[in-house]
Amino acid sequence: MNMPNATGAAAPGTVEFWFDFASNYSYLSIMRIEAEAARRGANVVWRPILLGAIFRSFGWNTSPFVLQPIKGAYVWKDMVRQCRKYGLEWTPPSRFPRSALLPLRVACFGAEQPWIGAFCKRIATLNFVDDQDIEDTDRVAQVLTNLGLSAAPIIAQALGDANKLALRRQTEAARTLGIFGAPSFVVDGEIYWGDDRLDDALDRCAELCR
Amino acid sequence: MNMPNATGAAAPGTVEFWFDFASNYSYLSIMRIEAEAARRGANVVWRPILLGAIFRSFGWNTSPFVLQPIKGAYVWKDMVRQCRKYGLEWTPPSRFPRSALLPLRVACFGAEQPWIGAFCKRIATLNFVDDQDIEDTDRVAQVLTNLGLSAAPIIAQALGDANKLALRRQTEAARTLGIFGAPSFVVDGEIYWGDDRLDDALDRCAELCR
Repeated sequence: MNMPNATGAAAPGTVEFWFDFASNYSYLSIMRIEAEAARRGANVVWRPILLGAIFRSFGWNTSPFVLQPIKGAYVWKDMVRQCRKYGLEWTPPSRFPRSALLPLRVACFGAEQPWIGAFCKRIATLNFVDDQDIEDTDRVAQVLTNLGLSAAPIIAQALGDANKLALRRQTEAARTLGIFGAPSFVVDGEIYWGDDRLDDALDRCAELCR
Repeated sequence: MNMPNATGAAAPGTVEFWFDFASNYSYLSIMRIEAEAARRGANVVWRPILLGAIFRSFGWNTSPFVLQPIKGAYVWKDMVRQCRKYGLEWTPPSRFPRSALLPLRVACFGAEQPWIGAFCKRIATLNFVDDQDIEDTDRVAQVLTNLGLSAAPIIAQALGDANKLALRRQTEAARTLGIFGAPSFVVDGEIYWGDDRLDDALDRCAELCR
């Protein structure tokens, strides 16, 4: 079982990628980060978190894009433009934010596995391109199967107490670090918030490796 | 007297720049926009607004960076990095957000004057580099004088009822458009929020002129 050490210092040239599948701006980064990191020789550490728990710690019971409708209206227009800019597909989700507990647990369990990037991209695409429920066990299992994996044991371990606790602890670690939104990137102990800072975070990675 | 028509459609190749001197991310755009617009042959329409009035309409009595300290702590680190990236000077302000009513009124009055860009840069620099009060009449007058202008009549007109009303109306127009933060840019009726969208907004300007 792989439990990322959320409090340990990451090696130089490493970006910690803190994300939630429910988050639309996390979708942009999930789709972009592997290629952008590879271009700079940087290593990605995947850190799924329960963004809703962080929001609840601020007294919010849902996304700020729902709580503040004028900002929400903007965000859906911004997403169309950002996806066009990055050459990504985009469908406005008919439900937002979508519950993503099961795939986040799978991502937490598989964070150090070679399939983590492909799994995250497929789940994010289900949410923000295919407009489908990502909490459905059969659908998550199908994603794993399509990646050539044995879905049942992975899901069983993802739903085990140790892994459930690992995801909660990772979310607490995010809060302790000062993370307040997703996606966030941590390089050399510094937080970079938002898909708009992905390039800066990776550039800093590359700088540290020179 | 120049009263920008906040509700009229802007010409192609024009970016409307909605800003408040109190806003730290507006500082970045104030310092960058003229050179970036010139590079693309785009025209800037300066639209000062009372961001505090917009925040109050959401029930906030100050900046979200003050109301949400975890985000505020991040923002001051982000500003250091953004200023380094753009080659801008930066001093963390000892008071934030600073009252900026007088310079906003002067900017509203002078929005179509050739000195508007230089005036805005100097006021923004006073706030975020020199860490000085920007509501002080003598200091604002000195900025105008240093630009080779007759400060007294400009300040008198800026403080006239018609101009005070123009600034309030421009702020209301921002709300009506769907603007919820500063800086914001409007190109072809579309809002772009944040200094992080300045390049996209200007690229869209250039695209419309082709």
